[in-house]
Amino acid sequence: MATASRRRSTSRAWRSASAIPVRPAVPWPPSPGTVTGRIPLTPLGPSVPLDRYRPKAFDGEVVPFRATAFREGHDVIGVHVRLFSPSGDESLHRLTPLHDGLDTWRTEIALCEQGVWRFRFEAFADDVATWRHAADLKIAAGVDTAVMRELGARLFDLATAEKSRPAPERAALTAAARVLRDADADDAAALDVVRDPEIAALFVQRPLTSLMTLEDERELLVERERAGVGAWYEFFPRSEGARRRKDGTVVSGTFRTAAKRLPAVAAMGFDVLYLVPIHPIGTTNRKGRNNTLEALPGDPGSPYAIGAADGGHDAIHPDLGTPDDFRAFLRAAQRNGLEVALDIALQASPDHPWVTEHPEWFTTLPDGTIAYAENPPKKYQDIYPLNFDNDPEGSYAEMLRIIRYWVAQGVRIFRVDNPHTKPLQFWEWLIATVNVDDPEVIFLAEAFTRPRVMQALAQVGFQQSYSYFTWRNTKSELEEFFTSVAHETADYMRPNVFVNTHDILTEYLQFGGRPAYKIRAAIAATAAPTYGVYAGYELYENVARPGSEENIDNEKYEFKVRDWAGAEASGDSLAPYLRRLNEIRRAHPALGQLRNIHVHWSDDDAILVYSKHLQADLSPTGRADTIIVVANVDPHSVRQTTVHLDTRVWGVEPGDPFEVEDLVTGQVWTWTDHDFVRLDAFDEPVHILHVRESR
Amino acid sequence: MATASRRRSTSRAWRSASAIPVRPAVPWPPSPGTVTGRIPLTPLGPSVPLDRYRPKAFDGEVVPFRATAFREGHDVIGVHVRLFSPSGDESLHRLTPLHDGLDTWRTEIALCEQGVWRFRFEAFADDVATWRHAADLKIAAGVDTAVMRELGARLFDLATAEKSRPAPERAALTAAARVLRDADADDAAALDVVRDPEIAALFVQRPLTSLMTLEDERELLVERERAGVGAWYEFFPRSEGARRRKDGTVVSGTFRTAAKRLPAVAAMGFDVLYLVPIHPIGTTNRKGRNNTLEALPGDPGSPYAIGAADGGHDAIHPDLGTPDDFRAFLRAAQRNGLEVALDIALQASPDHPWVTEHPEWFTTLPDGTIAYAENPPKKYQDIYPLNFDNDPEGSYAEMLRIIRYWVAQGVRIFRVDNPHTKPLQFWEWLIATVNVDDPEVIFLAEAFTRPRVMQALAQVGFQQSYSYFTWRNTKSELEEFFTSVAHETADYMRPNVFVNTHDILTEYLQFGGRPAYKIRAAIAATAAPTYGVYAGYELYENVARPGSEENIDNEKYEFKVRDWAGAEASGDSLAPYLRRLNEIRRAHPALGQLRNIHVHWSDDDAILVYSKHLQADLSPTGRADTIIVVANVDPHSVRQTTVHLDTRVWGVEPGDPFEVEDLVTGQVWTWTDHDFVRLDAFDEPVHILHVRESR
Repeated sequence: MATASRRRSTSRAWRSASAIPVRPAVPWPPSPGTVTGRIPLTPLGPSVPLDRYRPKAFDGEVVPFRATAFREGHDVIGVHVRLFSPSGDESLHRLTPLHDGLDTWRTEIALCEQGVWRFRFEAFADDVATWRHAADLKIAAGVDTAVMRELGARLFDLATAEKSRPAPERAALTAAARVLRDADADDAAALDVVRDPEIAALFVQRPLTSLMTLEDERELLVERERAGVGAWYEFFPRSEGARRRKDGTVVSGTFRTAAKRLPAVAAMGFDVLYLVPIHPIGTTNRKGRNNTLEALPGDPGSPYAIGAADGGHDAIHPDLGTPDDFRAFLRAAQRNGLEVALDIALQASPDHPWVTEHPEWFTTLPDGTIAYAENPPKKYQDIYPLNFDNDPEGSYAEMLRIIRYWVAQGVRIFRVDNPHTKPLQFWEWLIATVNVDDPEVIFLAEAFTRPRVMQALAQVGFQQSYSYFTWRNTKSELEEFFTSVAHETADYMRPNVFVNTHDILTEYLQFGGRPAYKIRAAIAATAAPTYGVYAGYELYENVARPGSEENIDNEKYEFKVRDWAGAEASGDSLAPYLRRLNEIRRAHPALGQLRNIHVHWSDDDAILVYSKHLQADLSPTGRADTIIVVANVDPHSVRQTTVHLDTRVWGVEPGDPFEVEDLVTGQVWTWTDHDFVRLDAFDEPVHILHVRESR
Repeated sequence: MATASRRRSTSRAWRSASAIPVRPAVPWPPSPGTVTGRIPLTPLGPSVPLDRYRPKAFDGEVVPFRATAFREGHDVIGVHVRLFSPSGDESLHRLTPLHDGLDTWRTEIALCEQGVWRFRFEAFADDVATWRHAADLKIAAGVDTAVMRELGARLFDLATAEKSRPAPERAALTAAARVLRDADADDAAALDVVRDPEIAALFVQRPLTSLMTLEDERELLVERERAGVGAWYEFFPRSEGARRRKDGTVVSGTFRTAAKRLPAVAAMGFDVLYLVPIHPIGTTNRKGRNNTLEALPGDPGSPYAIGAADGGHDAIHPDLGTPDDFRAFLRAAQRNGLEVALDIALQASPDHPWVTEHPEWFTTLPDGTIAYAENPPKKYQDIYPLNFDNDPEGSYAEMLRIIRYWVAQGVRIFRVDNPHTKPLQFWEWLIATVNVDDPEVIFLAEAFTRPRVMQALAQVGFQQSYSYFTWRNTKSELEEFFTSVAHETADYMRPNVFVNTHDILTEYLQFGGRPAYKIRAAIAATAAPTYGVYAGYELYENVARPGSEENIDNEKYEFKVRDWAGAEASGDSLAPYLRRLNEIRRAHPALGQLRNIHVHWSDDDAILVYSKHLQADLSPTGRADTIIVVANVDPHSVRQTTVHLDTRVWGVEPGDPFEVEDLVTGQVWTWTDHDFVRLDAFDEPVHILHVRESR
């Protein structure tokens, strides 16, 4: 599966606005055996806290490279980052001082080749810039002019002597040095040389460096684009094509009938189709509808109670079809441009073959029984949790075997159920081992737990993570959430922001009416590059099991027979809106980035405003792309207010007009940095605005 | 100088409320080669960001040990820290979960031995605690009682089999196991065993551990107490005993005359006497009074323009006396309980012997001259800065020679002038090299610059740092400042909070009147364990050079003839107040800690409230010590308000009364968690309250 080169069809492994010609770095030699370099230099990112794990990015992601650097006194320094792509492409990029009072330097680079990159920060005394600063002030003040002129001429001599410098540059510098040394040229002429922007630019491209300090080389893993960008759709294959008999019982859908739904999912513009577990379901202590303790005849049971006489995690539920049917389904999905994600729930029903063949993979109690899953004193008697500590070698190998089995069938994405109930060490080992053979394989962590645990799962290797988005509904909550995932944890954690799941129907959706469904989908689809929808969302299914945050008649315990076409025909479907959202996502590369979100101010506490901008140099199209989203997050209201935009984010000076097009309604307005908006939750609660490039 | 053992006259190397008997940690064996341990464990502190430098503490400092730890699922874990003192004393301490939602564990330990400590965090499954939690709920609910009883009995069997467990414990556990297994004992009796606090305590002291995960061993440098605790006093020796002739000229003070001032400084309770540079002063381009460009006859010049025909950094200004006089002065200081700190300013006047002997240690310009210090286009023509890059080996060695020379004379503290204008690498090398021979030597960094640079100086080895305290005057500024230095950077940076210096007379002091002097001294002396005062502060010298933040007639450029005794006799001296502050500091070990500050709320925006508490187990006296400071930071006002105290910090339940004694006035009040205060800036602007222990 692994291929030697994973670079996409682009001429370079990277895109950058700060690239300069590659030259070797000659380190300042004397080192007294200190930790501190001659120019103190501290990498800030990309990195994972404590540097124990490798930071990561996805193919095409714009990654900020940041370091703290300063030197004693006032002389000017420069900072570079040197990159080595997995296939050996070396490049050099110049960092910009942020002048933030914290000596931070930064640049952004889009990384366009999969694999392990290496990077190294380099800091140096920028002798020409130091001279320019002093010479500018002193020659203008008539102080030490002869000395300053000769100092500059000597620096130009050094540059001219560099063989690697292009001949026209050397000629220009020779001429400039001559002016500085020319007794007939007055100080005004010398000052022109000092202030010459072209000469300054030469030294940005090919600086004269001294006291060169090299940081240690670090690694960054670039995974495939789908690890970071994608629209997900979840369904239960047994429900797709299921039909109700006259007696009320339901005939299970199969992979063949479910395949008929693929064109509709593809037409909505989704990239990934995620299937809940497809394995045989246990009958012992099978749960009935609405999680009741006893299943009635015909109740299909929870697909998470995995394993029966028909097999375990490497088997397919006989009602769904055969392994051939599954492979045919995968091919049909592929033809529709959909990639299939499988659900991996590492637990067993009491009927799972492991229970008799490998009781050591469970916890046996003093009475000889196997311990059920429990949250004392509650017990979940349809499920045995695994115990990885009795036989780590054997149990780890079996889990690896299962993943490899499905990889061999053609699956490359796994949604992992409750990973936070298994040892983190296990996941680190499993994901690394699987990715050695096939770096295309993606694991999504379905953990809703404490922040440090969520972060740790991402750090040990999960390519994606479910997130707190589901419960972040107010303007301030959403601002904080997206700022945090974009600017604090993005070096290792990528949220997949699901608007709903088969286990989560939030109060916001229960009580927000149809506007709530639109609002949440529009924000998820535009604020995050990866988002997800569970089937039924487009039908506004909003009735919860009383007292809970999940749907009544949870699909986990029964079949759902839905009338997709009927709903769409009667205008009772969100599908057209989802289709439009996914079209917008595909047309706008700015929405395919996680870290570029910028929150703007509005005067209303329910009007959320953010932009996503991708500058031309970093964009796959070579053109800048800017989207502004203005969302009324109160689904019960009509709101009007003024929004205040930091237009410099997309290169427009405050006060200057620019054109925006609402990509949902097609309306076009001329905006400035202060704009009136009116958002009717019952009509179009969200503006998704494209900033048109001025001509 | 170095001695094998640096432990103070205490029986143990540490004090801790969480120490448990030392037992070996048996690591959980299977490791699949992952970075993640079986129980994910991440050290939080003590540490320096990025772990490049060793964190540090001072002898007797209470150090928080913090880690993030959790495991999959819901089973209970425990976390220990294992300490090895420099002399090999091994101890084990139990961390407490903070239940902060971030899986943080913490304990505090007072470290009482100088040298390099090693520490290691250890996390484990606490199987007894897990069982107790489940057994409590399930036996009470009548679920699985037999199984739960037998599971407990088996754990007790394991504990009983431990040879290292004291016999009475083993007997108690044998008996408890018997009850659990006794068919005649009902579940209520079993539940009594589960809930028995004495049995629980046994397992806190000697837990049954499994899945034991060991972190890497880390180092922590403990320096002598004076590195972190001390009251400093700065004077110019040439001014002490200087006398004005009838013609207005002044006769320089000498070490002999300055020695006469030592008893008064000691009587004020100071610990360290800091002298500005004592070396010969250059005459070329000597600065006159108030930093004028031309010195008049009799102007002594700035002691920072170091070096003349009489010698350089290893010489003594002939006006001050001879090397013998200096040594006699050191002895006299020692007799008065004062330690002398010397000022190290690594720069030269044009007359310094280095200039002719080692021009390579300076920067030579194209015209053959040596470059002056400058901030273009301004020049400082009485000073040549050093250039360490032309001859690092030679220049480094010379600086080391100078420090060693003064160490040989008996100096153990150096205040370093402008360290941020020399390479950080140099300081790391110099301080480490000096401290290898003599770990008693302390360096104070006099840098007022950007935060990352200040922090880096502390990280590379400076034992103390000047700080932004001088410009933090409002309540919110002071709250933020002390919280930051106590809780964010204390693992590597120790502020020495000077209320003034010979170069700093803030607007607050210029315009705050005498109350300002009291307020600043009281806060500095109580909020920070190390603070400093420059001579003249006690005389309320508050006239600035117009437009500047320094005294007019700056002592750097002239002699000061002051009438200390006269001022005190007329009541115009702050000396008695300073004496009282230093008495309070010595009597209250809570004030000898940096990290124990806790800010409390008051309803007035100028009433600053903080407490410093030291619990009995961590205190050198074995008794708890609590000080509450309530300061009116507006020196122009009388303020009254209500303060709201989190009394749990010192173990008093909210609402319970306790007695406080004002250590300045001697008044005693009964306080609770909400108290009225009235602070008259013109009388006593600051309450320094001692919480009396209830009997």
